[in-house]
Amino acid sequence: MHCLDTAIALTPIAENRYRGATSPAYANMVGPFGGTTGAVLLQAALLHPKRLGNPIALTVNFASALADGAFEIEARAVRTNRSTQHWSIELTQGGEVAATATAVFAQRRETWSAPEATAPTDLPPAEALARAGDAGRPPWVQRYDMRFVEGSMPEAFDGIERADSKTAFWVRDEPPRPLDFPSLAALCDSFFPRIFIRRRRPTPIGTVSLTTYFHADDAMLAAQGERAVLGTARALNFRNGYFDQSAEVWNSERQLLASTHQIVYFRE
Amino acid sequence: MHCLDTAIALTPIAENRYRGATSPAYANMVGPFGGTTGAVLLQAALLHPKRLGNPIALTVNFASALADGAFEIEARAVRTNRSTQHWSIELTQGGEVAATATAVFAQRRETWSAPEATAPTDLPPAEALARAGDAGRPPWVQRYDMRFVEGSMPEAFDGIERADSKTAFWVRDEPPRPLDFPSLAALCDSFFPRIFIRRRRPTPIGTVSLTTYFHADDAMLAAQGERAVLGTARALNFRNGYFDQSAEVWNSERQLLASTHQIVYFRE
Repeated sequence: MHCLDTAIALTPIAENRYRGATSPAYANMVGPFGGTTGAVLLQAALLHPKRLGNPIALTVNFASALADGAFEIEARAVRTNRSTQHWSIELTQGGEVAATATAVFAQRRETWSAPEATAPTDLPPAEALARAGDAGRPPWVQRYDMRFVEGSMPEAFDGIERADSKTAFWVRDEPPRPLDFPSLAALCDSFFPRIFIRRRRPTPIGTVSLTTYFHADDAMLAAQGERAVLGTARALNFRNGYFDQSAEVWNSERQLLASTHQIVYFRE
Repeated sequence: MHCLDTAIALTPIAENRYRGATSPAYANMVGPFGGTTGAVLLQAALLHPKRLGNPIALTVNFASALADGAFEIEARAVRTNRSTQHWSIELTQGGEVAATATAVFAQRRETWSAPEATAPTDLPPAEALARAGDAGRPPWVQRYDMRFVEGSMPEAFDGIERADSKTAFWVRDEPPRPLDFPSLAALCDSFFPRIFIRRRRPTPIGTVSLTTYFHADDAMLAAQGERAVLGTARALNFRNGYFDQSAEVWNSERQLLASTHQIVYFRE
């Protein structure tokens, strides 16, 4: 069993209720990696017997740092339409809400389609780049093979502020794992907090809210398989304790698999 | 009383519960303008006696078209920390969920701050541009004074697809109204669906999920007052029935007041 599947494993315990547990393999500085928290909240809807279609939108709100150990998830399909379904999901530990999520699922049909945002095309392939080191990084970083084209996480914080926080990198699960909705949702939180790239100094941070829009369907995910995807990211604005960042995940043919946005707390 | 204040008026009916009603002044093609729906969901938390600080994030999920008339809102503070508060909010009509929202509020402190995304600087001021016509548009469009620099809503659909859907425009409430969090939240949905700008043909659409990050605080909102703000928007990707778009709202000094993202359903 892949370590991501262990991290998002859920046991049904009642109607709409599941039990799960944080996974040491995806530990972060404090509590687990937010990407796996988002993935397991999505998984509760994906596993639900009333589930319709596939996710198109997921918002995860990190209400507190999760404690290492067991949690419960309640996932309610609050509205099911002909082709869309709306979910409200809560993760609790010891009866206290630690994270909330909303998700929209849809049955998609083929329509006119067109890209507007575009990925950079002149990048070296993942195979031509060295894997980023993970010395001194929390365990979750080791669960990804990351190869940076630009905007890598600083090896050491030199405190020399950069003009921007742009990143382009290749990333895949480590060990390799075929891409699916939970792994794509988790990977959308693998973009390091932009303040580290921009300001290059140690800063206490925490993602507060994370929204992902899924453009991929099952066929696109299956076609990408275990290959690295291209991630691009940048910050929008840092102001008085909070900054927001936006990112995109592209497949090998430079099609958009997901766009993802988050707002992050930081301390001075 | 300003028509926006009428649209977001709420009467407390029980702990965590409010009653409100849609407003003809903000009617859309079917049901009310999504911006006022988002604003009234936010207003339920803003009015709540347990409210801490100001909004930094709001996600609104449009589960169905609202019917014109009364609705109820339940707003629960699911977690209150030292400086942040997480809200889960549901709007129901006849006992059925029509919209859900999550919001994060925070008490902000002054920290290092820096922009990264930048607004275009070489734009004509609002006063130098003609107000966009609203002939044939639904009532909510008349509630905004919109002056387009580029990417205006087509007066007529000529079906000639554009290369992109970029918009820059000046926008304010009409009649003028001092900017506050509910009006900023509503205005973040005043960017027309990008598919109209890009594809220029009549297309049934509906916003499915809308996320806004607030960078403004009370002082920035008060300083902007009734003056038009600058809005910039673009689509990311159109695929099989859904597209996403991102937009920014800037004050007169080109500071970011809010960034906003949405995913929209469209029919072929």
